[in-house]
Amino acid sequence: MMRQAGRYLPEFMEIRKKYDFFTRCRTPELASEITVQPIRRYGMDAAILFSDILVVPQAMNVAVEMKPNFGPYLPNPIRDRKTLDAVTIPDVNHELGYVMDAIKATKEKLNNEIPLIGFAGSPWTILCYMVQGQGSKNFDKAKEFCFSSPILAHELLTKITQTTIAYLKAKVNAGVDAVQIFDSWGGMLSPVDYQEFSWQYINQIIEALKDEVPVIAFGKGCWFALDVMAKSNASALGVDWTCSARNARYLTGGNITLQGNFDPSRLLSPPKEIKKMVTQMINEFGKDKYIVNLGHGILPNIPLENAQAFIEAVKEYKV
Amino acid sequence: MMRQAGRYLPEFMEIRKKYDFFTRCRTPELASEITVQPIRRYGMDAAILFSDILVVPQAMNVAVEMKPNFGPYLPNPIRDRKTLDAVTIPDVNHELGYVMDAIKATKEKLNNEIPLIGFAGSPWTILCYMVQGQGSKNFDKAKEFCFSSPILAHELLTKITQTTIAYLKAKVNAGVDAVQIFDSWGGMLSPVDYQEFSWQYINQIIEALKDEVPVIAFGKGCWFALDVMAKSNASALGVDWTCSARNARYLTGGNITLQGNFDPSRLLSPPKEIKKMVTQMINEFGKDKYIVNLGHGILPNIPLENAQAFIEAVKEYKV
Repeated sequence: MMRQAGRYLPEFMEIRKKYDFFTRCRTPELASEITVQPIRRYGMDAAILFSDILVVPQAMNVAVEMKPNFGPYLPNPIRDRKTLDAVTIPDVNHELGYVMDAIKATKEKLNNEIPLIGFAGSPWTILCYMVQGQGSKNFDKAKEFCFSSPILAHELLTKITQTTIAYLKAKVNAGVDAVQIFDSWGGMLSPVDYQEFSWQYINQIIEALKDEVPVIAFGKGCWFALDVMAKSNASALGVDWTCSARNARYLTGGNITLQGNFDPSRLLSPPKEIKKMVTQMINEFGKDKYIVNLGHGILPNIPLENAQAFIEAVKEYKV
Repeated sequence: MMRQAGRYLPEFMEIRKKYDFFTRCRTPELASEITVQPIRRYGMDAAILFSDILVVPQAMNVAVEMKPNFGPYLPNPIRDRKTLDAVTIPDVNHELGYVMDAIKATKEKLNNEIPLIGFAGSPWTILCYMVQGQGSKNFDKAKEFCFSSPILAHELLTKITQTTIAYLKAKVNAGVDAVQIFDSWGGMLSPVDYQEFSWQYINQIIEALKDEVPVIAFGKGCWFALDVMAKSNASALGVDWTCSARNARYLTGGNITLQGNFDPSRLLSPPKEIKKMVTQMINEFGKDKYIVNLGHGILPNIPLENAQAFIEAVKEYKV
């Protein structure tokens, strides 16, 4: 489940009470503990490292705060040549060494029983936050920056891409078994703009990592690009719940592994109904070349027995 | 252009300084003046009545405030049987008589030179606000309500549908030449949930209005339902910029009129580039069975000459 170490778990909420967001990310003992909490409770088939896509801008000299009841806040957004020039390409082992330590600590706790997945935001999605300065319904300032200053935008995207490649390679060296690239905001772009401002950079990351570990690419709302994505060297593609299994298989040509796509809000249905819907989802994707997952991050208000029903339905699935 | 009487016009901002949002909606002289402002400046082929989809919940006994720098705020959201029972089906000519007066005043100002389009939110989109109580990135509370209390949800959707049908019929009687149904948040639902919670109600509205005026249905992010929508009695379907002309024609079967789909943020490109992109868009949709439009509402920060370039490119288009 995406964001599976998230706020629906009481044992996570205990840790959350004591340590703020980035302290949890930066303290290997906490990050690794949070990563394995859902595994202990539910026994998923893979662990996803607890972290945040916004540790990358932080390492690139762009301040990021996590404001309670508000979300990420970047007090000095990138809007022009001067702010762009202050963005650095960091030594990731130095600036993000705490992530590598968290990976090593997690691998020890997992004892090689299940794989560990690391992740990064797509360059476009990271740009969205860097330019907008906070979450947004339409990231209008980020799009304005790209459409009115495309040269600066591509320069920023290139810096983020270089950093992300180094970051994910360091994660692989530290022990992750697969990586996922999250393009949370790719679906805000037209198909043409998506190729220009998002996909070409994701594809550079895939090319740089493909020989080291499997790379999963997930673009929320990016159904329109699934045909191009399917021709890349990604090992699997994530799909969200607006793209049915049938459409996803059709658009990707039927050969690539797909991951998804349960609507996280549907985990608010009664457990019995959840199980029925999960079984139907697996039937529709087919059990081969398929990774059961949500179509986006799990919500904080999901009852434990509902998350349980989701996992059980997968484990109980009979071919 | 959707929201064409909007905040990008200085003459609108003059009125906005003096009167608050709902005063502008409720005062026929102001609403009609705002409606014709963009026509005077740019000479579009149709006027779109200045109003708001949230006048409907207001008429249904659900308070709606427009908070500066926040957007709509509904202090008493619908969450249970008790709050649902307080929602009324109003006499629209009484509760929304000011809209009918605004239509009559606008028709006089337009002098029958161009048609006037009226609109309403889809029942699902209205429910989103009624339950969430404000705008949202994922309308999680609205979806929770539907998925955990589907009986109450359908009761609310039925009330909204009945009100909307009466409201749009009254608008037709008052003089609008076409109506558009906006499903701004339909794209948050899976294809199956979209049919259950949104489309069936939109379709009821289309069926009730189809013999009176052309009905345009627009579902943002609802590419996955275009095939079903194309089989309805809607006269035209709106598409957003994530669905290319080619995909839209393919998904709708090629026979129905389409409206869209310029990315509003792309109006931030230089005017010359805008003209090129608009021409290309018309080429791709084809000049027949096509209404040039944005893919969503115009943004407040669009320079006047950029909106002008959009309109000019359409008027200058040569077959």
